[in-house]
Amino acid sequence: MSVLIVGSTALDSIKTPHAENPRLLGGSASHAAVAASFFAPVKLVGIVGDDFPKKYVTLYKRHRIDLAGLQIQDGKTFHWAGEYEVNMNNRRTLLTELGVFEKFTPHLPAAYKQSPFVLLANIAPALQHHVLDQMARPKFVVADTMDLWLNIALADLLRLLRRLDGFVLNDSEAHQLTQEDNVFAAMKKLHRLGPKYVIIKKGSHGSILSSPKGCFICPAYPLPRVLDPTGAGDSFVGGLMGYLSTARGSIDANIRRAMIYGSVVASFCCEGFGLNRTTRVKRGDIDKRVAELELLTRF
Amino acid sequence: MSVLIVGSTALDSIKTPHAENPRLLGGSASHAAVAASFFAPVKLVGIVGDDFPKKYVTLYKRHRIDLAGLQIQDGKTFHWAGEYEVNMNNRRTLLTELGVFEKFTPHLPAAYKQSPFVLLANIAPALQHHVLDQMARPKFVVADTMDLWLNIALADLLRLLRRLDGFVLNDSEAHQLTQEDNVFAAMKKLHRLGPKYVIIKKGSHGSILSSPKGCFICPAYPLPRVLDPTGAGDSFVGGLMGYLSTARGSIDANIRRAMIYGSVVASFCCEGFGLNRTTRVKRGDIDKRVAELELLTRF
Repeated sequence: MSVLIVGSTALDSIKTPHAENPRLLGGSASHAAVAASFFAPVKLVGIVGDDFPKKYVTLYKRHRIDLAGLQIQDGKTFHWAGEYEVNMNNRRTLLTELGVFEKFTPHLPAAYKQSPFVLLANIAPALQHHVLDQMARPKFVVADTMDLWLNIALADLLRLLRRLDGFVLNDSEAHQLTQEDNVFAAMKKLHRLGPKYVIIKKGSHGSILSSPKGCFICPAYPLPRVLDPTGAGDSFVGGLMGYLSTARGSIDANIRRAMIYGSVVASFCCEGFGLNRTTRVKRGDIDKRVAELELLTRF
Repeated sequence: MSVLIVGSTALDSIKTPHAENPRLLGGSASHAAVAASFFAPVKLVGIVGDDFPKKYVTLYKRHRIDLAGLQIQDGKTFHWAGEYEVNMNNRRTLLTELGVFEKFTPHLPAAYKQSPFVLLANIAPALQHHVLDQMARPKFVVADTMDLWLNIALADLLRLLRRLDGFVLNDSEAHQLTQEDNVFAAMKKLHRLGPKYVIIKKGSHGSILSSPKGCFICPAYPLPRVLDPTGAGDSFVGGLMGYLSTARGSIDANIRRAMIYGSVVASFCCEGFGLNRTTRVKRGDIDKRVAELELLTRF
């Protein structure tokens, strides 16, 4: 089955202590879509300006991503610039030029409206709502978010939570939203806000699922070196939804393995700037790391 | 087989946002010894003053801990007082009264010198050396440490590392010692300093082993509430060594499961002040959580 992915499509200029890479393909939807494309057909919903490099359209197409929902408008593509510190955990935003993204209203082509799996990648909750408003009864809806929306669009986000099957957020966002330091206490509170499946991402410490069938402790794939973690969270949830949409059986039967696949795609994402490494990955490379993770966690 | 454990034996006064508990049984050797006692006979080496409460001697004995190596001297028992912040991650020391601990020289009773498994729990590296000097060819020697020794006894510690089979430390200590932010890069450097087995503890994020047979990602047991994390790291390594000393087969065949057992004992430690919860645990409670961890990590 196909996955519908809506989110930001951007150009990222990323600086680390070791290198500087201007105007890479970025944005939550780009990372999530490429990650999901290893497992399932992807339908993308996003917006770019007329400055959007052709090579990035080619890149999407090479991953067989359906671009019927990608709006190309007069103006500039969303441009974000950020800088990481040595430890790769702290980053600061140097520049945010919204461009055409400022007036983005996601329109779903008719063929998109029946998509069974919907990933509302990080984007304003009002836009995530607007996508769901256009959908015919999707089978499984997951949303990601970021601290910005907790600060400026909390009411929209809380209303969205009641429409979701799954909610993915990182540990600091979970803390901010629930006022709970403990992730397991936080997940309990998050369930009460709506979603049956709550996943808290903890960066290099992996992620944790809380679901009707209990918890799952999902490891991160060990990386001795991280080049650029931008988009790792988006890759994680994209890979997760891609895998889940094609796996036979129930969500409960497959979601753990889906997280493992997401975790592995995220590991590739961290090994290169932007999507440089992820786009060179073959399905076999992914399966190999999944097999390694089985060995790394067996006792 | 028995485990020889040397370390601090102290009285801990612990304050959290919820409660205050004066003069609990504490110290690295106390926590490690009780943890190991669930799996193996334990020989304790430590020192207390003549003010050491009888009830704590009774507690050790209830756990069948051999106290031939526990020196009782005129003076005061080592007393530490500390306070935790709301999130239970940051703590500050309010008071350190070394008492008789200041002049501690670990003497090994004759019957201790043949112990095959030796745990050098957190204590000055010079004392850890002194214990090894008295031993006849132990089978497996593991040491724990703390940031204090990195600051004031680094040369002793580096010399100790060359005498160890296994070295256990937490992530911030690993960073301080190797100048590597990345745990996998840090473990590589730590191997070069001597130990074949390196374990980095990450608190609620679990721990990671690097060994001749590869890495193991060990989860922490999920706790929705932590009452007092004091001694959790000592419990982890105590449980690990206790389990390892009685398991059949090679170290490599058993060390992962040993870490899981250590992790579970540490989880009980966090659920009560000092050793209050750990001392009420039965072996069956431990096995139950180990079985749960298998389910929590299976995919």
